[in-house]
Order: sequence, then structure tokens, then C-alpha cells
Amino acid sequence: MISTIDPAVVEFANEAFYLAFNSGNLAAMADLWAADSPVSCIHPGWRPLLDRDEILQSWARIFQNRGEDRQIHCHTLRVMNHGQCYSVICYEQMAGAVLVAMNSFVLESGELKLVHHQGGQCMDPPDLDSAPQTIQ
Amino acid sequence: MISTIDPAVVEFANEAFYLAFNSGNLAAMADLWAADSPVSCIHPGWRPLLDRDEILQSWARIFQNRGEDRQIHCHTLRVMNHGQCYSVICYEQMAGAVLVAMNSFVLESGELKLVHHQGGQCMDPPDLDSAPQTIQ
Repeated sequence: MISTIDPAVVEFANEAFYLAFNSGNLAAMADLWAADSPVSCIHPGWRPLLDRDEILQSWARIFQNRGEDRQIHCHTLRVMNHGQCYSVICYEQMAGAVLVAMNSFVLESGELKLVHHQGGQCMDPPDLDSAPQTIQ
Repeated sequence: MISTIDPAVVEFANEAFYLAFNSGNLAAMADLWAADSPVSCIHPGWRPLLDRDEILQSWARIFQNRGEDRQIHCHTLRVMNHGQCYSVICYEQMAGAVLVAMNSFVLESGELKLVHHQGGQCMDPPDLDSAPQTIQ
């Protein structure tokens, strides 16, 4: 049995996901996703992707098609622990939109790996520019 | 340690969630949500709700404001297990829209309880009327 992971470590894994996104680093993105656990990815408006290769292809497509300004600033709201599954609820602030996302991680070979991402637009976001980017 | 739960049992808990929704049964909805675990609920377009009472109030508001035809037909795509956390990815078919949802459950006192719900509209849904409503 593993012991409970510090929420700061979970938040660090979550930040690594947005760093991979913002730098368009597909190798880093691939390394972040779990290899031995079931995975799911639900991009806004898309059908759910339930296959690891399909998920990585979707990120490749998103990286190719996005503009240079398509950077995400992540505001972490909550780190949650359910057994061996660790989740982050956060706002994704980008040019012209704010999304709400959930990212879930499990440990594989001692490292937190993504098993789930779902994002959807928030139609009534708070003023994130004046909010602290901390766990509440 | 608990043993792994049969996916059919997880799917049954997921069906209970949509039964509570379709019948507008707030007591059943309240009973479905975990009492001792961190919970999150992200309705389409809403800010994330991270407090159990706030989540139940949101369902009360939704039940009050929806039309009689606001029934959800759930098409389960996948049941996933990550440690003690069990998740369902499904389509929510309703009048005029198809959503993609993720519902996550943990065991509390031997019963599966909801710890997370997130739904968002699918802009390119498959033809659900001709699709089998089974785990794929």
C-alpha cells in the first residue's frame, strides 16, 4: 500500500500537464498519460476519447491547429483524494474563454500519471486575474 | 481492503443517479452523494461546486426549473476502475441535446456513492437511437 500523496505533489503533476500543453510538447504530454490504467479524455464539445493512442493523437491535432496565443493559465481550486486516485478541479484561463477542468491521476511506478481530463467552458467565471492561484 | 467491484454494480449506481434525476427525487439524489468523501459537481457552463450542500441545492434548483420533458436517457460507454474509485463515462441524451458526462463513485459503508459529476454538451454526437445501450 502506498501512503497518501501530498496535495502539492498532485498540483505539481497538474502543472506539468499545462506546461506540456503550453509548450506544445507532445513527448511530455505522452509521458504524462498513464500507460497501464484505463484513460479517458473529454475535450469541450468532443465525443469522449477512451483510448490512449487516440487521446495522444487528439493532443497532436490540438497542438497543430492552435494559435501561438493559445496558452492556458491554470487556477487550481481543489485537490481531492479518493483511494489511489487523485483529482484536481481547476479553471483554465485562456484568450477569450475560461474553462472548468477536472484532471485525475494515479500512481504508476511511483509517478503520478493522468487517467482523465475533462474540460468545459464556464459561462459565468469569476475574475481570475484578481484571484490568488492557490489551493483553497 | 475491498475487492474490485463488478462493473455492472457501478453501472447500476450510475443508473440510480439518472433515475433520481428523471423522477426529480431530491431525497434519492441526496442519498446518492457521498457524505464522508470530497465531492465535486460541474454542471454545463457553471462554476464548479465543491461543497455537498451546495451540490444538493443545485439539483433542487435544476429540478424546480426544468420542464417535464427534461428526461435524460443514459448511454454508458465505459466503466473504469482506479484503485477504490469507480467512474462511468456516458452520453446523456435529452430533448435537443446530447451531453458527455463523467460520474465517479467510491464505497462508503459498503455502498457506491457519487463523488464527482461533470457534464458538457457534445457538439458532434453519434446517432444514439441506433446505438446499443451497453458497456463497450
